[in-house]
Amino acid sequence: MSLRDTQSEPDDRQLPIDRVGVKALRFPIRIRDKARETQATVATAQLTVDLPHQHKGTHMSRFVEVLNSHGNVLHVDNLRDILEQLTQRLHSDCAHVEFEFPFFLEKAAPVTGARGLLDYTARFNATLENGVLDFVLTVIVPVTTLCPCSKAISIHGAHNQRGQVTLAVRFQQPIWIEDLIRLVEDSASSELYSLLKRPDEKAVTERAYENPVFVEDLVRNVAQRCEAEPNIRWYRVEAENFESIHTHNAYALIEKRG
Amino acid sequence: MSLRDTQSEPDDRQLPIDRVGVKALRFPIRIRDKARETQATVATAQLTVDLPHQHKGTHMSRFVEVLNSHGNVLHVDNLRDILEQLTQRLHSDCAHVEFEFPFFLEKAAPVTGARGLLDYTARFNATLENGVLDFVLTVIVPVTTLCPCSKAISIHGAHNQRGQVTLAVRFQQPIWIEDLIRLVEDSASSELYSLLKRPDEKAVTERAYENPVFVEDLVRNVAQRCEAEPNIRWYRVEAENFESIHTHNAYALIEKRG
Amino acid sequence: MSLRDTQSEPDDRQLPIDRVGVKALRFPIRIRDKARETQATVATAQLTVDLPHQHKGTHMSRFVEVLNSHGNVLHVDNLRDILEQLTQRLHSDCAHVEFEFPFFLEKAAPVTGARGLLDYTARFNATLENGVLDFVLTVIVPVTTLCPCSKAISIHGAHNQRGQVTLAVRFQQPIWIEDLIRLVEDSASSELYSLLKRPDEKAVTERAYENPVFVEDLVRNVAQRCEAEPNIRWYRVEAENFESIHTHNAYALIEKRG
Amino acid sequence: MSLRDTQSEPDDRQLPIDRVGVKALRFPIRIRDKARETQATVATAQLTVDLPHQHKGTHMSRFVEVLNSHGNVLHVDNLRDILEQLTQRLHSDCAHVEFEFPFFLEKAAPVTGARGLLDYTARFNATLENGVLDFVLTVIVPVTTLCPCSKAISIHGAHNQRGQVTLAVRFQQPIWIEDLIRLVEDSASSELYSLLKRPDEKAVTERAYENPVFVEDLVRNVAQRCEAEPNIRWYRVEAENFESIHTHNAYALIEKRG
Repeated sequence: MSLRDTQSEPDDRQLPIDRVGVKALRFPIRIRDKARETQATVATAQLTVDLPHQHKGTHMSRFVEVLNSHGNVLHVDNLRDILEQLTQRLHSDCAHVEFEFPFFLEKAAPVTGARGLLDYTARFNATLENGVLDFVLTVIVPVTTLCPCSKAISIHGAHNQRGQVTLAVRFQQPIWIEDLIRLVEDSASSELYSLLKRPDEKAVTERAYENPVFVEDLVRNVAQRCEAEPNIRWYRVEAENFESIHTHNAYALIEKRG
Repeated sequence: MSLRDTQSEPDDRQLPIDRVGVKALRFPIRIRDKARETQATVATAQLTVDLPHQHKGTHMSRFVEVLNSHGNVLHVDNLRDILEQLTQRLHSDCAHVEFEFPFFLEKAAPVTGARGLLDYTARFNATLENGVLDFVLTVIVPVTTLCPCSKAISIHGAHNQRGQVTLAVRFQQPIWIEDLIRLVEDSASSELYSLLKRPDEKAVTERAYENPVFVEDLVRNVAQRCEAEPNIRWYRVEAENFESIHTHNAYALIEKRG
Repeated sequence: MSLRDTQSEPDDRQLPIDRVGVKALRFPIRIRDKARETQATVATAQLTVDLPHQHKGTHMSRFVEVLNSHGNVLHVDNLRDILEQLTQRLHSDCAHVEFEFPFFLEKAAPVTGARGLLDYTARFNATLENGVLDFVLTVIVPVTTLCPCSKAISIHGAHNQRGQVTLAVRFQQPIWIEDLIRLVEDSASSELYSLLKRPDEKAVTERAYENPVFVEDLVRNVAQRCEAEPNIRWYRVEAENFESIHTHNAYALIEKRG
Repeated sequence: MSLRDTQSEPDDRQLPIDRVGVKALRFPIRIRDKARETQATVATAQLTVDLPHQHKGTHMSRFVEVLNSHGNVLHVDNLRDILEQLTQRLHSDCAHVEFEFPFFLEKAAPVTGARGLLDYTARFNATLENGVLDFVLTVIVPVTTLCPCSKAISIHGAHNQRGQVTLAVRFQQPIWIEDLIRLVEDSASSELYSLLKRPDEKAVTERAYENPVFVEDLVRNVAQRCEAEPNIRWYRVEAENFESIHTHNAYALIEKRG
């Protein structure tokens, strides 16, 4: 049985396609992990290539085949393999992959040392264009932010809330997800924990009160730490506060210029 | 041209269907409003009926026709019309509708009186079964909650956060969405605003510090107010705190028995 | 240092709380799996207990401690352990847990046998009340549905789309998630795959065309298979079609009466 | 009472902030509309400015004041007013706004002419930098896509599904949202409707079968129409198919080079 290969037919619209492929594909993966070598998690993946103007379509099933053929351990090195195989199997000059996944870290509560897992989100974006790899690592880190204005003007208390920092970096040498998370957590009013006993809650409350940050301070603190870290070549940091006194959020962004 | 009516064909599986219809249908509506008579908003609607075992299918287009034929002002009275028309057009004993929509309230900041719109979410659920109407009104109200434990044990400050209260009620006489929102806001550490100048922020911060509530207190405060309101025949209140010191949420629920 | 235990203080509002606890807690777990013993995935968890009227609050950190103390393999048996420990540690009569997680199944394409992982969602809901365990297993299964009416009236083709079936069951003997997924997939126009080569795509297209189902047929097919399975004591099946010709969805529900 | 103005204090980190402001703010608006002059809808807004390195913070309440002071009719002209006022009130060189909202269009079914509202999503992004306005209009349009490969290889039928096209444009002269929607709908296998009677469903099914498009064809068709429209200076078009035979989506993107 010979089935017509519609995708391989010619196209005369003279329009190359920048990206074509698959999106929203859930896939179980293992990620390198400082504490335990690797941790199991579930990624949502996107894989795309460019398509020259003369071809009608790409071959979608090959994206899934390439992904399947690489086992499930993901790190910078085998992302290059996946990208190379995509460019070869799909006859393209440029391939992109994105993997976003929950990442877990065991943390000890600050006073009692009670241990619990905290969940973060991390993302790998990698592009291979004419043999050159560009890799961006992103971490999404929940934090506490306590408002400096509210503290300065109020007799007691200060509004605080859960905030979220999204930090994307390009680096010289591979960098641990854990180290980027730490960099962000050190920039906030307090880091978060899954498990806090009363003495820990006291410590965390007081620490936040003593370290008020606006969303502006938060992105500047993160940017300052990134500038001081020679291994980080580029960064973009966004902070969003789920304000406890409003229904809208406060937001700030700094991106390092080229 | 006579087109076969597959839906009207007989079915021999002996299985009546509890609910069948349309879901996730966006529709612009007008809602009655204390301040301005009506306000314009956008609902996400669900309309369903029961289907006796002997019919293969319902006629989906009639749900949309019934909705279209009623103009766009929604209130308790014309919900009954929509439900009656659904049971007639679809030959069923029982019909259900749900409309969920953003609802806006102009509020004055507590000190400066600066005015701004705050957004809430409201929901109408109505069922007509053998001529008897059951109507449930739900409001989803964002609030500030400040932790009584954190306040009691800390030298200064107390963790607080945005929380969300979902209150569903059945009533004797039509009740204003605005009055249910007020009932919930009075039960929290503080209500929220879209616009707060510095003197307002000071007032809101101090008010929250002086009125700490656990998620347990919040649902009890709302339940107590519902019990004291003779017009409310039944209620279910849920509160969820987006904890500023954790990535998980605190949650509580009280539902009035029969 | 003795820190005040606000939660243990008395409450005089005379209002017991139906459910109080933690929600939206992400946690890595392992799930029993027919093919490979267990598979690693990530759950979103909710853990709650009831709270008698005389206590001001529950102790939220204990929920996280109980969860942490049970390792990460989840099955019916250790859910009972978690629930028992929740009732003991929190002095309550009734505890509830919910775990929702992606679940992966390796499938072979129907003609070429090409293998790929497909993602589903599963959910465990378990309640322990005065020593009696109630367990509900839910699977959320994506399928193809092809419209019988569209096929019957059109010269060629028929609109079809991705649909989603949510099947919840109570059972006598433990049941495999894989078997419930199979029951649902056999009830649709076609099951889905992550990897299909051209001969497979032909087979899947033709299979769907030969097996048209309304959303009404889909829930009845599932219900009929559940009725025929003596191990299933109760079920509720919902189907939602992301209609390819509308922006709204078609929806149907059958729930087995007590 | 003089309250300390923390935001106006100096900052010595030497880090200017690219964007700071408010996000996720829901606001009722009116949008110009070909058929009825304006239509009421609900926007989710983001308003930001740049912040020079020497200032510690921006004044968040002014964003809300500027938004409130402009009434609720939004069009290209008063977006410039909002942006100018933001730069003035916040002493910045550059301001950005984004408004995303449901947009409704009344459509007549292709055979019976039955009328019903269809919902789309539209977005305004506008930046004012040193007095120069940059405006990008985006429409998100749901469509039917029918797979050319599936049609070519199968005896009968072809898999089809709901797809979604996101088209962003810059233009010379103001362009109607309705006209951009039409441009996209003409590029797909079929447009969608909220209300279709049986003769309409037959027409829509057959039209889709006669106009198969890959996601690659869809973005090329839209790009080709944009290239042919002298009023469109720049465009970026993305298409995503919610494949009826997979759980992942097919995706393509073309962006016009500067």
